[in-house]
Amino acid sequence: MRLTTQTDYALRMLMFLAINEGNQTIDDIATAYGISKNHLMKVAQRLAAAGLIDSQRGRGGGLSLSSAPEDINVGHVVRLMEETSKFVECQTGAANSCVITPACGLVHILSDALELFLSHLDRFALSDIIKNRKGLEKIFSFSG
Amino acid sequence: MRLTTQTDYALRMLMFLAINEGNQTIDDIATAYGISKNHLMKVAQRLAAAGLIDSQRGRGGGLSLSSAPEDINVGHVVRLMEETSKFVECQTGAANSCVITPACGLVHILSDALELFLSHLDRFALSDIIKNRKGLEKIFSFSG
Repeated sequence: MRLTTQTDYALRMLMFLAINEGNQTIDDIATAYGISKNHLMKVAQRLAAAGLIDSQRGRGGGLSLSSAPEDINVGHVVRLMEETSKFVECQTGAANSCVITPACGLVHILSDALELFLSHLDRFALSDIIKNRKGLEKIFSFSG
Repeated sequence: MRLTTQTDYALRMLMFLAINEGNQTIDDIATAYGISKNHLMKVAQRLAAAGLIDSQRGRGGGLSLSSAPEDINVGHVVRLMEETSKFVECQTGAANSCVITPACGLVHILSDALELFLSHLDRFALSDIIKNRKGLEKIFSFSG
């Protein structure tokens, strides 16, 4: 049980863009975190498609937040990036899914637990997780 | 974000043993669910090491629950099987872990959300998830 790399990188990208205003490139973000540019490109496409970031092409272009950090909800980002509907095999609807699904008492308990997890994240905005702005700026200035 | 196969199979094994009393073989369980015998053997070793099931060798041997289903807690099983301490990269302690960890506001929020998830599971016992005993017996009698 672990957050997917896509979600992890999406949150890191949003945090980077919240701290570093103006257009930023995928290269900047990949260098700052020491992570894969290819993965970040896919993440950027999904965040842009969801309207969370703006992507401008050409000279002087790059990525920026579409909204203020106060208006970007952490739970929303995690729900967007994770396939929370596929938390256990029986939820995937796969043909070879677990045989006991029709009589299993676990399915709803797991769904409720997952909803508690996500509801907690719904209580926070991007601005809440970058409160240590000075600390983050310092780290980015060294790693950039 | 998904339960690991180990956790999924551990819960299925415990449910099978709760419904089918007496010693059961790995073959019985693998056939009932149509899942890998090798995976189930590893799961059985972990459940036996944790004292949740008994494993008896030889003729007439097999697997059985060590305690009554009322006394086996779902949250305990999930905490045992999942590496919940490695939910995000920064928790793994890997050398190449996320650079912003010292200033990141997300770590505690994710830990708290995960604890809410697990605490919900702590409220249920194995007996709660096999309440539809007749339904489960019927399914096992067809798939066995």
